[in-house]
Amino acid sequence: MQFIDDFNAMSQFGATAAGGVDREAATADDGRTRRFLADWFDRHGLTTIVDAVGNMYGTVEFVPGAPYVLVGSHLDSQPTAGKYDGAYGVLAAAHAVQAIKEKVADGSLTPRFNVAAVNWFNEEGSRFSPSLMGSGVYIGKFDAENILKVTDRAGISVRDALSDIGFHGTGTQPEAVSYAEIHIEQGPILEHEGTTIGIVTANWAARKYSITVHGEQSHTGATHMALRHDALVGASKIVVAARELTKKFPDGLLLASVGQFDVEPNSPIVVPSKVTMAIDIRSSDPEVLEQAHAMLLDAIAEETEVQISIDTSALRPSTSYQTEGVELAEKAATDLGLSYRTMLTMAGHDSVNMKDIVPTVMLFVPSVDGISHSEKELTHDADLLDGVTMLTETVARLVRGDLETSS
Amino acid sequence: MQFIDDFNAMSQFGATAAGGVDREAATADDGRTRRFLADWFDRHGLTTIVDAVGNMYGTVEFVPGAPYVLVGSHLDSQPTAGKYDGAYGVLAAAHAVQAIKEKVADGSLTPRFNVAAVNWFNEEGSRFSPSLMGSGVYIGKFDAENILKVTDRAGISVRDALSDIGFHGTGTQPEAVSYAEIHIEQGPILEHEGTTIGIVTANWAARKYSITVHGEQSHTGATHMALRHDALVGASKIVVAARELTKKFPDGLLLASVGQFDVEPNSPIVVPSKVTMAIDIRSSDPEVLEQAHAMLLDAIAEETEVQISIDTSALRPSTSYQTEGVELAEKAATDLGLSYRTMLTMAGHDSVNMKDIVPTVMLFVPSVDGISHSEKELTHDADLLDGVTMLTETVARLVRGDLETSS
Repeated sequence: MQFIDDFNAMSQFGATAAGGVDREAATADDGRTRRFLADWFDRHGLTTIVDAVGNMYGTVEFVPGAPYVLVGSHLDSQPTAGKYDGAYGVLAAAHAVQAIKEKVADGSLTPRFNVAAVNWFNEEGSRFSPSLMGSGVYIGKFDAENILKVTDRAGISVRDALSDIGFHGTGTQPEAVSYAEIHIEQGPILEHEGTTIGIVTANWAARKYSITVHGEQSHTGATHMALRHDALVGASKIVVAARELTKKFPDGLLLASVGQFDVEPNSPIVVPSKVTMAIDIRSSDPEVLEQAHAMLLDAIAEETEVQISIDTSALRPSTSYQTEGVELAEKAATDLGLSYRTMLTMAGHDSVNMKDIVPTVMLFVPSVDGISHSEKELTHDADLLDGVTMLTETVARLVRGDLETSS
Repeated sequence: MQFIDDFNAMSQFGATAAGGVDREAATADDGRTRRFLADWFDRHGLTTIVDAVGNMYGTVEFVPGAPYVLVGSHLDSQPTAGKYDGAYGVLAAAHAVQAIKEKVADGSLTPRFNVAAVNWFNEEGSRFSPSLMGSGVYIGKFDAENILKVTDRAGISVRDALSDIGFHGTGTQPEAVSYAEIHIEQGPILEHEGTTIGIVTANWAARKYSITVHGEQSHTGATHMALRHDALVGASKIVVAARELTKKFPDGLLLASVGQFDVEPNSPIVVPSKVTMAIDIRSSDPEVLEQAHAMLLDAIAEETEVQISIDTSALRPSTSYQTEGVELAEKAATDLGLSYRTMLTMAGHDSVNMKDIVPTVMLFVPSVDGISHSEKELTHDADLLDGVTMLTETVARLVRGDLETSS
């Protein structure tokens, strides 16, 4: 199959020995993957547009002046990641756009709108914070000039990193009329149920915190325990407290994790003076999330050996995808004979941004064992191909204006 | 006072805004401090010798062919450190040697041995592991060729780092007949008691562990808690368990700390796959240390969510300084009219190495509030000067052969 061949070719960029990829936003390997995509657009007659924050669009204009159905995801990855997360959705979008272009050419589809495949910049947020960066600029949540000044931990700005790989563009963002995205589930539900397609109705609520634990540097071998203000001990208690939170609610209702954790001065015989960390808690139930939030603040307030400051605290509320989009996808799956179910997304996606401005359809395909953000991530080829078929049908209906004629 | 002037001049190298220093082993600022010392040796008629692992000797030969009384400490520091730790002992040694040279010149001291001030390479071990590196090579505990291949976290070898600052020498190590060192106490006992001089009789026993916690990388926002193998949660429990250990013994008997702690892949929305850490436990009572060792291994064995490997586990036993050296120092303090007490050292020092091969005298001066490995480290000028007087008298007695005539 051409899709699988293309996907395997694309997965060579930044490939890791364990079968994953390492291509954080605007690194050399992200640049190589982007050039592969731009070349694919060229070869299939899509016009490549790159905007100021590195979003890439492969556009096809059917109706001069009409807005675009956008369909896409992201090519950037976590430092060591699976090869499906994001990249599958971008390549599926490109194939869907090509298929629609052929349908229009052979007269089997009459377009009301134009169509474009999209690769959003820095969805992951591991190199440059915050995540969902390119789509955030697209919808006007972030200012492009401010985003270009954001730096990674080596002090390199988004502007310089994009310029280095040749993707600090000057193109105009195509205007969206609707948006579609397909992604691996990153959870075990579809695989365990034997369902092929997930249609997302809402996202889990999430809270993210940046926290600094301030202690006092001293000698591990010569400072009496009673005199210590050990930032690592204080921070470790918060990590354990965050985990304990999840046990206070029914199974599966709350996720809590600390992913980033940096110790200073980080020397074997020095009691740490400072720890910075990123805490992430999520729930399908906004009320549970707020209870967990209050309990976490209590746990932080209980620490007396160290001083803890909450530097940032951000709520990503649970919000719904538009009902008309969910219904359009349900009809498409039924007509294609693909099994489907509606579900929530625990993870964030660029579609969470896009649904704030246009009707948005978010689709999932199964993930083996629900493994994600790991080189062990796997989706079977048959599911990948069914996903492309489903995405193509969904986008075709958006392009011919089904949302507008049904309302 | 010339000593205080010299000390203040030396403390400018690698000075931090908060009044400390940052001059890890073989960095540019360590190099500047070393050139200051070499220049000081030149100006005062000491001959500078640099050996293959960067140990610096400022020698004075009174008796051709006789061995040397060595007196010294280390100029390297932790990443952000106080200005007294090590550096005070090196400059005090230089001043002591100069004073003895003058006594010999004016006929008030008849030398049996030669004398040399020493700056040992990489006592701290923060940049290159293990610590006590230069003195370890001197006594034959480490092989010089192996040590030169040790790399820092940036992959720079000891050989290259020393060459870069011009201190990868070819000189021959002077043969030692005895050793003396003075250091700030790094504990509060002398200051609280109002005693001027500590004479060290033995070092605390210590155990040091390098540990790796292996988890499994996954998505913080989409991995069910029951499916997680979170390396950071497992590692944090070990940090807390190490702290809890210290509460199971009478106050002050056990120190336990984790100073170095590195998380992978360390991204905000990825469940950590790996944590490496350095644990350090110490006690004045070897039996307590062994009980704590067993309890720590039990705590590690109890973790089931993650796999924990103990990569290295090293015992530094409690060993005594030679009684004849302690008695020589007691007589010197009495004759000088300085208050003194015998005590243990909780921290490691190059003298812990040297006492394995020659009679060794280890002296302390008070540390305000016992603060150490911190920019807040402070010893009052009067105590610094009393320490130089005490060190000079002690070394003078070693040079004239008091240890040999008393035995």
